Amino acid sequence: MPDHKRRKEDRVGTLIIIGGHEDKEGDREILQEVARRVGKGKLVVTTVASHEPEGYFDTYRKVFKDLGLKNVMGLDVNERADAVTEETGKLLEDARGIFFTGGDQLRITSQIGDTQMEARIREIFASGGVICGTSAGASVMCETMMIEGKGGESHRIGDLRMAPGLGLIRDAIIDQHFAERGRMGRLLGAVAQNPRVLGIGIDEDTTIVVEELRYFTVLGSGAVYVVDGSCVTHSNIAEGGEDQILSIYDVKLHVLSKGDAFDLQERRPLDACKLDPGSKAQDSSPIPEIENPRAASAASD
Amino acid sequence: MPDHKRRKEDRVGTLIIIGGHEDKEGDREILQEVARRVGKGKLVVTTVASHEPEGYFDTYRKVFKDLGLKNVMGLDVNERADAVTEETGKLLEDARGIFFTGGDQLRITSQIGDTQMEARIREIFASGGVICGTSAGASVMCETMMIEGKGGESHRIGDLRMAPGLGLIRDAIIDQHFAERGRMGRLLGAVAQNPRVLGIGIDEDTTIVVEELRYFTVLGSGAVYVVDGSCVTHSNIAEGGEDQILSIYDVKLHVLSKGDAFDLQERRPLDACKLDPGSKAQDSSPIPEIENPRAASAASD
Repeated sequence: MPDHKRRKEDRVGTLIIIGGHEDKEGDREILQEVARRVGKGKLVVTTVASHEPEGYFDTYRKVFKDLGLKNVMGLDVNERADAVTEETGKLLEDARGIFFTGGDQLRITSQIGDTQMEARIREIFASGGVICGTSAGASVMCETMMIEGKGGESHRIGDLRMAPGLGLIRDAIIDQHFAERGRMGRLLGAVAQNPRVLGIGIDEDTTIVVEELRYFTVLGSGAVYVVDGSCVTHSNIAEGGEDQILSIYDVKLHVLSKGDAFDLQERRPLDACKLDPGSKAQDSSPIPEIENPRAASAASD
Repeated sequence: MPDHKRRKEDRVGTLIIIGGHEDKEGDREILQEVARRVGKGKLVVTTVASHEPEGYFDTYRKVFKDLGLKNVMGLDVNERADAVTEETGKLLEDARGIFFTGGDQLRITSQIGDTQMEARIREIFASGGVICGTSAGASVMCETMMIEGKGGESHRIGDLRMAPGLGLIRDAIIDQHFAERGRMGRLLGAVAQNPRVLGIGIDEDTTIVVEELRYFTVLGSGAVYVVDGSCVTHSNIAEGGEDQILSIYDVKLHVLSKGDAFDLQERRPLDACKLDPGSKAQDSSPIPEIENPRAASAASD
């Protein structure tokens, strides 16, 4: 294998994190980007987040076939035992992309956390694959994920429930259906708990495409809100009672829309024009293929 | 009249700006503060904002009577001619407080803008009186007010409609029913148009008590969001198309709750404990009475 090729395969892959309700009938901009990234590889759509997965996979298979993907497979995980079968292992062995559908993020982690299925998904990501998730599948990407918290009102200190997520992206907390469900309050609540985590709120039919965990670009019809608590001077999160409304001063807020980009390390919006053109979400150049990511992963260990 | 008394009367008064749906049956914290400020004076409740004012005044009269106000009068303005009658003039002559109920802010300005009624309200304010408004009555306080703009979604550049307000508070734009109707997007849109204006989003059953236009304190069960665009580094508001989603970088956001205070001149949250105790909203000391604000106003001209 030539050196330059191995270097490409060694790199961490791409996360496509979608705020839910991505368009499946119009120009399907977001799912088209998923299809472009997976290219000639295999995409496994997993409905593990859903209590009633029937029909979910069929919808996605139809769209992805329409968008030119040849190899789209469904993976349902009804119970934890399904995540460790030989069949599941085989299904994932040569996958280039994984797509988590919506549902309940706690179902994802409780069913696949610390299983071979989870380990394989990490390998795919570590070897340059594409891990996608919408709605619950978006929240689960974080180290610590939100599992409950009211929308449409300001945040009461005791209202938020969190749980350990898959941790594919660190130092960030992701919320979805963001403007639609009025979730600014709860995202501020999460950031107030520990401003180390950057709050990222993603609207419906909107996505961030995270490249190698370094930066992301925005696609879709809504906005992405980045809540940076690093300069916060005061909050009542630790002293206030459970029913008390959150106070927090000096939050930095960025609102990004289609074509905008954000540097996750510098915590700054980026001029999207200055990005490496080979890795821009808006760019239509082909993505390098990984025919057998497991082999690539082994080579990099 | 002793000098010290004239100085007190010379000062600009108080604005009590309420985000709508203030509690009228429980502890009525906000309306109690209105009553405390009006004290032994006359409060005029005007339903000019409402297309169907029937019943509005009765509800407020009952609550304010329960809260100890002796002199509560209703003032409906069905058409512009009502704002210049001798009767209206008499009703307002010795008023210490005005309360604008909810409805449509454009009804308030189109009915009373540039009338004797408006002039008299300014006089009451200029001579230390209390001007209150809830919902539409809150928005109308600004120089430039929002009259239309979607909630529950991110802001599209062409979505906002503005109109000239009463201008009792300058360099600020006020939105109401804030978290409940998911209005962060439209407030960001308003601030992006001209970061000279500070965005103030007020939740339902929540109020800011603005003292002499210098600072405000927060009361009620929700939050107040202050959007400061003075450090914004980029927005697409001028270049973007009408349907384009707003991008805006480096907004400063403060979330304040009951007991918090904010310095309007410095644009900084204030330590409420450091406020002049005589003018704190939470303080229960009596407010100096103005028996005849018109006379006081004349004296100060």
